Amino acid sequence: MTCKALLGAAAIIAAGVQVQAETLDVASTFPKNMPFLGEGAEVLAKNIEIATGGEVTLRVHGAGDLVPALEVLTSVSSGAIPAGWDFIGYWGGTIPVASLAGAMPFGPSPDLFVGWMWEGGGLEIVQKAYDPLGVKLLPCHVTAPEPGGWFNKEINTVADLEGLKMRISGMGGKVLNKLGASTQLLPAGELYVALERGRIDATEFSLPVVDKSLGFAEIAKYYYFPGWHQPASWNSLIVNMDVWNGFGEEVQNQILTACKATVAWSMAAAPEPQGAVIEEFRAMGVETKRFPDEVLAALRAASKEVLEEEAAKDPLFAEAYASIQDYLSKAQDWTSLQTIPSE
Amino acid sequence: MTCKALLGAAAIIAAGVQVQAETLDVASTFPKNMPFLGEGAEVLAKNIEIATGGEVTLRVHGAGDLVPALEVLTSVSSGAIPAGWDFIGYWGGTIPVASLAGAMPFGPSPDLFVGWMWEGGGLEIVQKAYDPLGVKLLPCHVTAPEPGGWFNKEINTVADLEGLKMRISGMGGKVLNKLGASTQLLPAGELYVALERGRIDATEFSLPVVDKSLGFAEIAKYYYFPGWHQPASWNSLIVNMDVWNGFGEEVQNQILTACKATVAWSMAAAPEPQGAVIEEFRAMGVETKRFPDEVLAALRAASKEVLEEEAAKDPLFAEAYASIQDYLSKAQDWTSLQTIPSE
Repeated sequence: MTCKALLGAAAIIAAGVQVQAETLDVASTFPKNMPFLGEGAEVLAKNIEIATGGEVTLRVHGAGDLVPALEVLTSVSSGAIPAGWDFIGYWGGTIPVASLAGAMPFGPSPDLFVGWMWEGGGLEIVQKAYDPLGVKLLPCHVTAPEPGGWFNKEINTVADLEGLKMRISGMGGKVLNKLGASTQLLPAGELYVALERGRIDATEFSLPVVDKSLGFAEIAKYYYFPGWHQPASWNSLIVNMDVWNGFGEEVQNQILTACKATVAWSMAAAPEPQGAVIEEFRAMGVETKRFPDEVLAALRAASKEVLEEEAAKDPLFAEAYASIQDYLSKAQDWTSLQTIPSE
Repeated sequence: MTCKALLGAAAIIAAGVQVQAETLDVASTFPKNMPFLGEGAEVLAKNIEIATGGEVTLRVHGAGDLVPALEVLTSVSSGAIPAGWDFIGYWGGTIPVASLAGAMPFGPSPDLFVGWMWEGGGLEIVQKAYDPLGVKLLPCHVTAPEPGGWFNKEINTVADLEGLKMRISGMGGKVLNKLGASTQLLPAGELYVALERGRIDATEFSLPVVDKSLGFAEIAKYYYFPGWHQPASWNSLIVNMDVWNGFGEEVQNQILTACKATVAWSMAAAPEPQGAVIEEFRAMGVETKRFPDEVLAALRAASKEVLEEEAAKDPLFAEAYASIQDYLSKAQDWTSLQTIPSE
């Protein structure tokens, strides 16, 4: 072997253990700089870069930069873009079970939704719905209970929901329809104008810190609680399956570890800042209100109807719904026994 | 440069990016195979191996294998062992603030304790107490609310706590002392015999799945709830600071990512299995009971006294206590607004 050949061989050995960096373009369904939801994608990107030793980095693009927000799933499925960052519930039109995996009305709180998804068999069920699309689902970010929404109409009785025009995502819309409301799903960027012009009477979007960035406090009279429609919500990284399979098992495991670290971040970062933001809204003249118990009871009953109807239509929805109910009933006795009376 | 020198240079370049595996001996304060608590160390070890690409692996040793359980901190501090796996509250005798960081009676639930520790400034305060010992604190595992304990004596009134002999760890012991109980901290391995022989009337240890492995259901009449003394508890990896500093920044960040992924695991894995285990205990004849509200109110008042006394004695305890209270008050309005009435 010549000196040159030897050096070539040495170079190949060196290259074999060197980092082969790969940058993944990620189309987000949220504006890039949106607090918490956009931030979550950046935290995930950082964690993936750390855990893969720089082998995989994410380049996150804000909603609409690569494809329209609500076309992210089909674009990842087709391979037009390698990955996306979403609210799982956005895909309920294509994948029925995604409505439920995104957020279940009157369903699990964040800790129990994380338990069901990652340790209670949830992810395995939901992935079955993504397999035919050739998409790998990584639920890496859980959102704390969202408030009930911004209203310019008071809700004092169940009858007040009749004819209400509201923007609401996920299954909450179907529940409100049962009670006579007319609902629609508009992307974040269109909500301010729709509410200001009175084309809608009410809208929900996300946590107070997120909603602040959308300016609703300037144009809404009431901020209603609790967020019965999304007691916890999953945001996920979705990856084209060919891209995912192209990573070795080691890198796949590193991405999973980074994903779980991001779940912990999302749970840790949510609780503290909301209170101060709610105070800011009050100072701007917004009145915080709770839905009357009678209204919540009607919403709960309607939610059950909707969940059962959806389960009857789709086997994977039915499987996931039964699995969540089973999980919650197992946790129920334990959590009741452990309740600490308030001061 | 000669051919040989060139090859040497190439070899150095190759070595520079090769994995330099390091195995860290970790002395646990828990039996190696203990469900959840021992398991948590294994999950962390796996996550660290993944995130560091095999550069760092943990070799976990059960309680007593390297050093006695309650000497783990001093041994890590001296460098006799490089790392430990513990309940932070065990070190309250050496580091007062560790009592509080381990678990706060009537304090934060797991989600809020995670928020305070990782995103609310908690870790920065508590680390200041570990710095003089030369120990790096990594809170990687949060334990769900522990039950109130196994009793062979009924607790119907506050007076029933007088003269009660109970094994209890953390600050709960000091609280019970205020109400006339006599408390002690015994390691896991000694509890069964102490309770069976009647040397103690009651003991708590951890979650139902953990307590099952200790056999208390065979010898206790009552299983009391809720776990007022530990609504959430931190377990941590502690690393000798010289060892920690010996890792490069990249590996340190990888370990932190693995640590947070383990936090997510600990929150996800806890809720589901407890209910079934409680049912097993009932089938064995154990009666589950709740402390009367009057007793819980007295325990809450005594807890406040103890917390204030400890804060008066130690500046870091005082700083952490004020910080937790501030954090909880910020989260309070938000969580009250968001409460969903039960069915």
